[in-house]
Amino acid sequence: MSEAKPRQRLSDEQRFDWLRLIRSENVGPRTFRALINQFAGARAALEALPELARKGGARRPLRIAGADEVEREMNAARRAGVRYIALGEAEYPPLLRQIDTAPPILCVRGREEALQQPAVAIVGSRNASAAGLAFADRLARGLGESGYVVVSGLARGIDMRAHQSSLATGAVGVLAGGHAKPYPPEALGLIPRIVEFGAVVSEMPLDWEPRGRDFPRRNRIVSGLSLGVIVVEAARGSGSLITARFALDQSREVMAAPGSPLDPRAEGTNDLLREGAKICARVEDAVSLFDELRDQRTYEDLSETREPAEEPLWSEQALFGVDPDKTPKALIGDQFDEPGGEDYEVKDGSIVARIADLMGPSPISLDELARMAELDVGKVRIALIELDLAGRIEHSGGDRVALLSAEEPN
Amino acid sequence: MSEAKPRQRLSDEQRFDWLRLIRSENVGPRTFRALINQFAGARAALEALPELARKGGARRPLRIAGADEVEREMNAARRAGVRYIALGEAEYPPLLRQIDTAPPILCVRGREEALQQPAVAIVGSRNASAAGLAFADRLARGLGESGYVVVSGLARGIDMRAHQSSLATGAVGVLAGGHAKPYPPEALGLIPRIVEFGAVVSEMPLDWEPRGRDFPRRNRIVSGLSLGVIVVEAARGSGSLITARFALDQSREVMAAPGSPLDPRAEGTNDLLREGAKICARVEDAVSLFDELRDQRTYEDLSETREPAEEPLWSEQALFGVDPDKTPKALIGDQFDEPGGEDYEVKDGSIVARIADLMGPSPISLDELARMAELDVGKVRIALIELDLAGRIEHSGGDRVALLSAEEPN
Repeated sequence: MSEAKPRQRLSDEQRFDWLRLIRSENVGPRTFRALINQFAGARAALEALPELARKGGARRPLRIAGADEVEREMNAARRAGVRYIALGEAEYPPLLRQIDTAPPILCVRGREEALQQPAVAIVGSRNASAAGLAFADRLARGLGESGYVVVSGLARGIDMRAHQSSLATGAVGVLAGGHAKPYPPEALGLIPRIVEFGAVVSEMPLDWEPRGRDFPRRNRIVSGLSLGVIVVEAARGSGSLITARFALDQSREVMAAPGSPLDPRAEGTNDLLREGAKICARVEDAVSLFDELRDQRTYEDLSETREPAEEPLWSEQALFGVDPDKTPKALIGDQFDEPGGEDYEVKDGSIVARIADLMGPSPISLDELARMAELDVGKVRIALIELDLAGRIEHSGGDRVALLSAEEPN
Repeated sequence: MSEAKPRQRLSDEQRFDWLRLIRSENVGPRTFRALINQFAGARAALEALPELARKGGARRPLRIAGADEVEREMNAARRAGVRYIALGEAEYPPLLRQIDTAPPILCVRGREEALQQPAVAIVGSRNASAAGLAFADRLARGLGESGYVVVSGLARGIDMRAHQSSLATGAVGVLAGGHAKPYPPEALGLIPRIVEFGAVVSEMPLDWEPRGRDFPRRNRIVSGLSLGVIVVEAARGSGSLITARFALDQSREVMAAPGSPLDPRAEGTNDLLREGAKICARVEDAVSLFDELRDQRTYEDLSETREPAEEPLWSEQALFGVDPDKTPKALIGDQFDEPGGEDYEVKDGSIVARIADLMGPSPISLDELARMAELDVGKVRIALIELDLAGRIEHSGGDRVALLSAEEPN
């Protein structure tokens, strides 16, 4: 075992600011990261938000999470036994830390240690067959006995069976909404039992009622926590396939249980096999694959040495403090009116307009945009933050972005 | 379409001699080929057989098929509408021609043209599930509609369903025994219907009652006739997996239909998928794969240009006549006592003994043997023919051979 590096910890004030920032309108994990990296701290980013959104073309003021609102959430969380773990802290799940859209704050109920163990996700149909449920049970037990935490999405059918069968060895459930609004109702009895030996996590505000689009979003955390995803029964177009897609994007393993060509519940998994997923027809298929992954290096090492994201997720400085030589205000000024290096004048507002003109419904990368706009990458990045906060941007994997057609520039 | 090359045809006398040779004891397709290549014709090989077997260490005279016996078979075949097609003749199935152990004589009932069309084998469990049978039906119809002849082994279950569902478009059945002893009884009603638009083939004597070991042997012809084999439901250790193994050895495609991890009838096919077989969960999976293969070049071309066997199957000369300058007798003498090139004397009997001494239960190649024995390959090849005819050799893929332990040298 390699020795875990000591990691820093947010101060109470920083954690409060982080929560306010991520709970603010149009601030997703990617925008959060861009803001923190740009403004060297959440407090400065919060201060800059209104102006950034205005420059990005927002038609009305951005809704910034109020201090009172966040304080209420934190108090309720404390009473409910929910802790906030920030990206970069030692307790943050090591594999989840590596994904592009890692939640800046993870809300955790249960045993945080479960989030440090090697984990495998088992997901599948809500209306599973008896055979599918039996196989999910067999898989979850086998993986649990082999030292894996089993992750799933708390849905009916395969997910719930995977949780039930891994209660004793360590289960991790991921909510689509907040901890105070568990869904579906069938999961209500299960959650306290998961919390006993495992953990239930959410990235949403405590009292967030999950809506349709929150479920696919949740699935990236299911795969992000895991070395790989095993799909047991999935119809075409089902949510489990979204989890598999996330796993691929995150360079995680994808396994699929085969099924009869005549069974619609197997169409999705058979499609996955056709596309190159590894077959999981025996518990040993999964255990041997993940043991190999785990044995290649220790789990700690794995989280440290896997292919890094294109840019560092956070500079230690941006994460945990503000460089005294670069106050946020100075930074904003610098970036918008960088001295020298450019042979023509660029006014603040014109950059956003120029970038927006160059964008369309097809995703384009930051570098391409900078080249086309003949601007340096730093300027384009800020323009994108502004457009993003104004709700005019759609992210699509890596650093590619598209302009949302509904929102026309002012 | 490339123009088919005109091929030669055996004379009646040659066909008669070929049949006698292949019907003689210890003469399988490989030995037949070695003999024809060595003696430049079946007649000369027949004459040499007794002496070769004696030198190989046979304890009793080799049973050579009698002229009367072969004449009886040919007469009965004529009455039953069975024709003998020899390897190298235009009517011989082009893909089957390419395999190492192609039957020298194929006994055919039905429409020979069906053996010239692109073919795909569908095989599987005898005790198939309703879903397995339904999928076999769907596959056979789909492949038939796309212009493929469907090949199978006339067994109960999947095989028979594949035949039934391809009757109208072209079915080819391969018998494990002779045409006069069709097996299993359930196939009796089916065979005349296959013969109408397709063909039933066998390599065995007309009245050969199939025994256990004839079924796996038959399976190499099922795959050999086909661009690929699709396995629909197969338990572990079942005969369909032998067909898949043959297909791999013959560089043919192997597809497998997936099945539930809890269904024992799917264990074999799921194993195949694990080992790299292509998934066949839709008719389009098969049609698109084989259409691509077929489209790469015309069917005729495919049979001509695929990777050739290590040595040419037959020289045209050996196939269809004897070089007047090399009478069989002269050839035998030449090979056993080649003038020059060797710096020590080798007596006839001593070569076989030396080769047998060098061999054991582990397969070894001809080239290795020649190197170890410090003899040229031609001499070793003849010694192997002799050992083979004496029943002392086991072949195991390519040109590798092992000594059978039961038979000790005299």
